[in-house]
Amino acid sequence: MRPQIVLFGDSITEQSFRSGGWGASLADTYSRKADVFNRGYGGYNTRWALFLLHHLFPLDLRKAPPVAATVFFGANDAALFGRTSEKQHVPLDEYKENLRKIVKHLKESSPAMLVVLITPPPVDEPGRKAYAKSVYGEKAMEFPERTNDMAGVYAWQCVDLAKELGVWSINLWSKMQETDGWQQKYLSDGLHLTPEGNAVVFEEVVNVFSEAWLSPAEMPLDFPHHSEIEGEDPEKAFQYLCL
Amino acid sequence: MRPQIVLFGDSITEQSFRSGGWGASLADTYSRKADVFNRGYGGYNTRWALFLLHHLFPLDLRKAPPVAATVFFGANDAALFGRTSEKQHVPLDEYKENLRKIVKHLKESSPAMLVVLITPPPVDEPGRKAYAKSVYGEKAMEFPERTNDMAGVYAWQCVDLAKELGVWSINLWSKMQETDGWQQKYLSDGLHLTPEGNAVVFEEVVNVFSEAWLSPAEMPLDFPHHSEIEGEDPEKAFQYLCL
Repeated sequence: MRPQIVLFGDSITEQSFRSGGWGASLADTYSRKADVFNRGYGGYNTRWALFLLHHLFPLDLRKAPPVAATVFFGANDAALFGRTSEKQHVPLDEYKENLRKIVKHLKESSPAMLVVLITPPPVDEPGRKAYAKSVYGEKAMEFPERTNDMAGVYAWQCVDLAKELGVWSINLWSKMQETDGWQQKYLSDGLHLTPEGNAVVFEEVVNVFSEAWLSPAEMPLDFPHHSEIEGEDPEKAFQYLCL
Repeated sequence: MRPQIVLFGDSITEQSFRSGGWGASLADTYSRKADVFNRGYGGYNTRWALFLLHHLFPLDLRKAPPVAATVFFGANDAALFGRTSEKQHVPLDEYKENLRKIVKHLKESSPAMLVVLITPPPVDEPGRKAYAKSVYGEKAMEFPERTNDMAGVYAWQCVDLAKELGVWSINLWSKMQETDGWQQKYLSDGLHLTPEGNAVVFEEVVNVFSEAWLSPAEMPLDFPHHSEIEGEDPEKAFQYLCL
């Protein structure tokens, strides 16, 4: 049984195995070392995520818990009340408390679990508007359903909570905005990630995992590398498996 | 617990989660429906794969077996005896018998498992030669370590065995050569796959899975789609989970 890494989040996690996706890149990087599970739920906010928590992370001693989990919500929670995506809106305080419940549950399932909170990415409002027009035409509402400022408020709340709970965090909202042209470079529709945006998430996650204790370079392969197998005596390389 | 799909094979499987890879595309296609496990072992032939069989697919009734597995070996078995990769060479008859043992074991672990044998891809000999020169310079052997004809012999043996055992197969060797320019279009170094080559494998596997009984379109999502969740009464969508 290999160590398990679970990616828990919304559409940005669900889509992370598309070409160039950060989830697939993680799976590739940890290939033969850990299994990466996609537990991304498009459109979900932290309120709805709570319904899944016990199903996805059962407190069952017979099942090995994940060694690490990313918790990547907020893009939907931060949707504005009174706009087209208000169904997904979760008030700031509740967002924080929901994240706290998620972390608490993960730590209950395994105190040693490496938990990484990821903030929502920045929002490019003109990009969102163009996207809404392409989908809804003239019916698209004039006012954005998400703003970058509000995503930032949720992002800092997420980072603060991680500090308070002593878990790792990635401030994607800040990180992405350090790069000129982040709006088109990292976001495909003002919210979801381009391959370059996926690469940022991938690098940040691997950096945090490595800085903690889950460095892919230091983890052993599950079975012998082919160069260690002798053509005339292949058994030799596999004998340790009988121990 | 989601249904599990296991990809068992050599480097062409191990690398299948790189950007545009067929494994990642499968994981994306079955997202929220099945988990895709990469069990690719670069450089391995069927002889060495047998050492892993009981570890990767334990006959343990407490563990749910995979619902489907791809078995994708032969590219190394078909390396020529007496050339630079002879350590990996496995005689044709033994290749067939090893594949038979693998299928037998998978069916023993679960008679209902959907087993798909994939043949080695075609070999582009000039591409292999160029690759060898780029790595070994003038020390590269003049004679190729793999030929397309020999890969074909192994491919047909694989297809024949699948027929004999009543399991599915994909003749990648034939399929790829139906397209003009397959040498550069599908192969990056005369043997491994480009993103276009990965797309061929992905499409073939999804086609076979769908034709059998594992159509992603017909499989249910693990949890409610966000459109089914009511903003005022989210519990309602999740009540069935308590059944």
